[in-house]
Amino acid sequence: MSKPPATEVHTTGLDDEVAALFPDVDSGVARRLIASAVRAFAERGYHATTTRHISEGAGLSPAALYVHFTTKEAVLHEVSRVGHLGVLDAIRTAAAAEPTPPQRMRALVRAFTSWHVEYHTFCRVAQYEIAALTEEHYAEIADIRRDTERFVRREIQAGVDSGDFTVPTVATAARAILSMGIDVARWYHPGRSTDPDRLVAEYADLAAAMLGVQG
Amino acid sequence: MSKPPATEVHTTGLDDEVAALFPDVDSGVARRLIASAVRAFAERGYHATTTRHISEGAGLSPAALYVHFTTKEAVLHEVSRVGHLGVLDAIRTAAAAEPTPPQRMRALVRAFTSWHVEYHTFCRVAQYEIAALTEEHYAEIADIRRDTERFVRREIQAGVDSGDFTVPTVATAARAILSMGIDVARWYHPGRSTDPDRLVAEYADLAAAMLGVQG
Repeated sequence: MSKPPATEVHTTGLDDEVAALFPDVDSGVARRLIASAVRAFAERGYHATTTRHISEGAGLSPAALYVHFTTKEAVLHEVSRVGHLGVLDAIRTAAAAEPTPPQRMRALVRAFTSWHVEYHTFCRVAQYEIAALTEEHYAEIADIRRDTERFVRREIQAGVDSGDFTVPTVATAARAILSMGIDVARWYHPGRSTDPDRLVAEYADLAAAMLGVQG
Repeated sequence: MSKPPATEVHTTGLDDEVAALFPDVDSGVARRLIASAVRAFAERGYHATTTRHISEGAGLSPAALYVHFTTKEAVLHEVSRVGHLGVLDAIRTAAAAEPTPPQRMRALVRAFTSWHVEYHTFCRVAQYEIAALTEEHYAEIADIRRDTERFVRREIQAGVDSGDFTVPTVATAARAILSMGIDVARWYHPGRSTDPDRLVAEYADLAAAMLGVQG
């Protein structure tokens, strides 16, 4: 087993993350810029990253960023927007495919956890750097987050209403389940001795137990 | 109710956080420097913070930092070390005061959650900026984290062994419980409509349910 790196930020596989998250970006250059920006933001933080770091990290000339993005903040906005919308879509789709509240909830937790495993570097930036967004862009991301929390709360409430769940504190349970998944972006990296499939399955079980799934 | 600020980083009460966490630092100047550093790291990130930012944020001359700390990294190291040791001590003390595994676990979760509420700005830095530490300092923090995880796993295992808990996945449950608490440092701020005492009590209940507490 390989020794894990000394630091916390791991950007291997980032090009694959970006390719999966930006299927509509048909410019390879734009994708390389996004991957380079996420890498730089994750490694040194948004404020210490320059547009030159981003361009040169993509193997391009210093001003290349401006062909595709107006500012450094525009890249962070795009990364945050795509990340937050993507995970909301993933949990909605996962839940919709299941017939009962407990099955829907397990599918939701599996999808949410998988997302934060698969896109861990990307999520790290989307979750921890967004204080740097403009007020308008921050408000847009905050709205998507509220939609996500609301969706999880409704799914839990549906299970309480059907008698499948016994949890008395729906809003706090939603927060706890979201935190379990989001924090994966902080601690997970491929070098760790964590099997992603097992983690995803066990988190679904733990969330079900937390909600007091009956039977 | 006051409107929450537009951004995510909230540093009100930081001087109180530092005073509580550094009772042995009897120099008011050193405390002001630590508070200023935590504020700057939380707001702009470690790499974009200069020693000048830290000194001037404390109302001191540009070079004042060096009277108390050899480098900017030394401040981050001290903040990370005190934060990680402090929370480990807090959960050990809380658990030790209780007689049974379920009571010990509830006390542990209450203490862990309270810590991340009370020191949310401080924890934000200690959790999300430590990739910037030197390899040696990072290894020291990673050791404290391992001790913390090990302690939570042992507490869960004790409840499984006594028949109080039914959870089959001890290590993953420990991770989930830690994530619930750590992520509080990301989302909590005093302007939110979250009652800290209620959150702490509800998180203890949710963790107990997750572990399958009997009776």
